[in-house]
Amino acid sequence: MENTAAGPTPDHIMQVGLGFWASKALLSAVEMGIFTELAAGPRELSELAGRLGLHPRSARDFLDALVALGFLHRSQGHYCNAPDADLFLDRDKPSYIGGMLEMANARLFGFWNHLTEALRTGQPQNESKNDAAASPFTALYADPARLKGFLAAMSGISQGANLAIARQVPWTKYQTYADLGTAQGDLAVQIALANPHLRGMGLDLPEVGPVFEEYAEANGVSDRLRFQPGDFFQEPLPAVDVLTMGHILHDWNLAEKKMLVGKAFEALNPGGALVVYDALIDDDRSQNAFGLLMSLNMLIETPGGFDYTGADCMGWMKEAGFRDAYVEHLVGPDSMVVGFK
Amino acid sequence: MENTAAGPTPDHIMQVGLGFWASKALLSAVEMGIFTELAAGPRELSELAGRLGLHPRSARDFLDALVALGFLHRSQGHYCNAPDADLFLDRDKPSYIGGMLEMANARLFGFWNHLTEALRTGQPQNESKNDAAASPFTALYADPARLKGFLAAMSGISQGANLAIARQVPWTKYQTYADLGTAQGDLAVQIALANPHLRGMGLDLPEVGPVFEEYAEANGVSDRLRFQPGDFFQEPLPAVDVLTMGHILHDWNLAEKKMLVGKAFEALNPGGALVVYDALIDDDRSQNAFGLLMSLNMLIETPGGFDYTGADCMGWMKEAGFRDAYVEHLVGPDSMVVGFK
Repeated sequence: MENTAAGPTPDHIMQVGLGFWASKALLSAVEMGIFTELAAGPRELSELAGRLGLHPRSARDFLDALVALGFLHRSQGHYCNAPDADLFLDRDKPSYIGGMLEMANARLFGFWNHLTEALRTGQPQNESKNDAAASPFTALYADPARLKGFLAAMSGISQGANLAIARQVPWTKYQTYADLGTAQGDLAVQIALANPHLRGMGLDLPEVGPVFEEYAEANGVSDRLRFQPGDFFQEPLPAVDVLTMGHILHDWNLAEKKMLVGKAFEALNPGGALVVYDALIDDDRSQNAFGLLMSLNMLIETPGGFDYTGADCMGWMKEAGFRDAYVEHLVGPDSMVVGFK
Repeated sequence: MENTAAGPTPDHIMQVGLGFWASKALLSAVEMGIFTELAAGPRELSELAGRLGLHPRSARDFLDALVALGFLHRSQGHYCNAPDADLFLDRDKPSYIGGMLEMANARLFGFWNHLTEALRTGQPQNESKNDAAASPFTALYADPARLKGFLAAMSGISQGANLAIARQVPWTKYQTYADLGTAQGDLAVQIALANPHLRGMGLDLPEVGPVFEEYAEANGVSDRLRFQPGDFFQEPLPAVDVLTMGHILHDWNLAEKKMLVGKAFEALNPGGALVVYDALIDDDRSQNAFGLLMSLNMLIETPGGFDYTGADCMGWMKEAGFRDAYVEHLVGPDSMVVGFK
């Protein structure tokens, strides 16, 4: 892309540099519920603009930009959802992943405007910016509506990986499991659904309990899956066959990461396994841009968090005493590291 | 991309929805002068971090993200510029186009965080937000440093198109030209350089004069190219053979656009031509996402501006009296419309 017979062109630079235009257009479309509105069927410009509250000056350009970006189709003056937008961005479908984008729209886009300050200071740029002593999750957990949105967002962004873990780990060898930082509990639920012989629990701060229990109930696994309130920094981890941590380890600094991996080793039953997953950076740190940018997002969001490579994580596992470990790709940018005690 | 044999995937949605991460990383890199620093030669992590003022927590992730995005290369621990970044993002090269990205970083990224409000109200979200009576350019022109940055940015983003216009228009038929809203004057300069028989002028508000004259002098065309201070809304346009308007017409509302095209028709010598260029939207308004997003940028930046299709512009030209018109692609997202009197 950057080199042609005639020499370099500025196209890739301009495309990425102004890429926030397309990004914010999609985020605003999700915020305004366009894809939920169009899931009911195609609509003409004026009707759609009226229902969404789009000003006449902006409506046509905005909707046509979403067409050109591939999220809407337009035929004979009627707009409708593209197949991926209809499946993943209609709030009324269980496959909705827009919660993550709603959060990105409401919080991250503005915080990322301070990326340069984060790069120079190493300090977070989110709600905790003016209260350095606060836990990164204090502001989040203090507001029930914001918390529920965050938890649903985590489920949305994680479900593909959760389904893969429910299949790819050799679960037949195990009887019990616990998911740390379980949030809404989608990973714990998917494991239970795919493996009827297992009994599990989800651990998180007490505020998360009602959301977890509602989700387990709705998925018909509450007889085998219970919520365990607790702080995985303050208390020992439960003695189970398998411990899972999805999009957890990247929130913490190196000492905290090693401490969590060490606590997992101590807690696991003999022969047990630790399953860690995140948007792992490739070992050469030159290919997985998403994982590296996610690490910058941890810079924006946390006092010491960062993403890491599979080799990094296997190193921490071996240091903690795990006898063996491997890395396996899940879906999209996510991979898991499995360590055996 | 959105459909696979196994059905739609969320990849395209997540890539665009979180695309502002990559975008802001590049904008911060330009702001910090990374590519200018590396134009001098490859540097190791710690040396580069020290010279740029990158905090140890962020330096490696940030630089490796720029590697994964293709703007830097890394070999044996040394970072260097990719060829396109070296040519277009080194401030010390005349081919630098980073001025536009510096402006996007300092102004547009934050303003676009208010896109939803713009879509609902039809109102700009830039410096003029709290002063609706202000001209969109008042704040810009009031600050010489900001003005010079804006003018250089416009040259950077326009030069490819300007070079194409200097070749593609049948200049041999004409003797005189004037460029409206000329800014630094790059279009007028490129036309003069490629066509030694022409004499031209650049029109803009008086504040622009020194910047224009310095640029014409530096390019050795000041004997055939002069600055004409004026406001193209308040005064008649000059009588010349060719009038050009690059990235001008999209700043204004429909009535203002038609008025400018009409004034151009009145002013042109018999047989003359009007050359208009912008990131023209395709006539079906379904392909050129950049043009449609640029139109949303005009929503953010101006009280009534919008981008338009080639067919739209040819329609205004014919309405104004032009006997014929055609559309021709220039480079990247830019195309021109040429109308003949």
